Amino acid sequence: MACEIERRFLLSGEGWRTAGTGLCLRQGFVSLDAHHSVRVRIAGGQAWLTIKGENMAISRPEFEYAIPLADAEAMLAGLCSYRVDKRRTRVRYAGKDWVIDEFFGDNAGLVLAEIELADEHEEFARPPWLGEEVTQDARFSYAYLSQTPYSRWTTA
Amino acid sequence: MACEIERRFLLSGEGWRTAGTGLCLRQGFVSLDAHHSVRVRIAGGQAWLTIKGENMAISRPEFEYAIPLADAEAMLAGLCSYRVDKRRTRVRYAGKDWVIDEFFGDNAGLVLAEIELADEHEEFARPPWLGEEVTQDARFSYAYLSQTPYSRWTTA
Repeated sequence: MACEIERRFLLSGEGWRTAGTGLCLRQGFVSLDAHHSVRVRIAGGQAWLTIKGENMAISRPEFEYAIPLADAEAMLAGLCSYRVDKRRTRVRYAGKDWVIDEFFGDNAGLVLAEIELADEHEEFARPPWLGEEVTQDARFSYAYLSQTPYSRWTTA
Repeated sequence: MACEIERRFLLSGEGWRTAGTGLCLRQGFVSLDAHHSVRVRIAGGQAWLTIKGENMAISRPEFEYAIPLADAEAMLAGLCSYRVDKRRTRVRYAGKDWVIDEFFGDNAGLVLAEIELADEHEEFARPPWLGEEVTQDARFSYAYLSQTPYSRWTTA
């Protein structure tokens, strides 16, 4: 078991696009709600099954296992109630690794940056393209997006 | 992916008890409904994660992975919404393997025999202790038992 501590942000510019290369992720959820998720992911010809528990503040338990690609394809095709495809770009900034996810399909237009931290109070330098923090905003969780995709959000 | 074809029966006697030795299974469900299940199981010091899809008649897709024991213990303790503990006895009869599960806790009193078959029409010899078939009776599914445990069933 790993304990995942992540902070999540919107983007405020396009500067990150030239700072890394993207990889397409195909993923689906066998099960997903506010308390847990069971995710199948295919990226770069490999596949993983990931189980996450409930968020406790900004950390939560996570279990991840490599699985055969054929199993993942079968689960995506027949067992996943919710699909999320996105392009992930990894950017290193001031000694820290950022992952930036551009969503496709129903969530097109949504771009999120995430950083994984050793503990909840760890300091880090903010890249110039970093926007508003949304770590605590449940609308950016997959549980919420699966019910109300980003393309259906209305801006006031 | 394996495609699991199982038939399930009640027991009509105790003759099976002396025909095999039992092993205690501790298991829990990360997720469980009528369409799928994500199960953690610990037995004999080993652990597995098993994902099953929707029943199609009496067969359904199944994916199983060995996982570290410590992961399974953590998932049972913190992530499983439903726990089922039982004792499993394996009995060989007329060239076929039967598994007989005695349930504990909320399902105490329930004993089920299962046989795995190569296809839905495969013939097999019926042991003398075999009772009524309940393969199609959804009350004997974990999805139903998790909501209405056997100890709360009333007999007419």
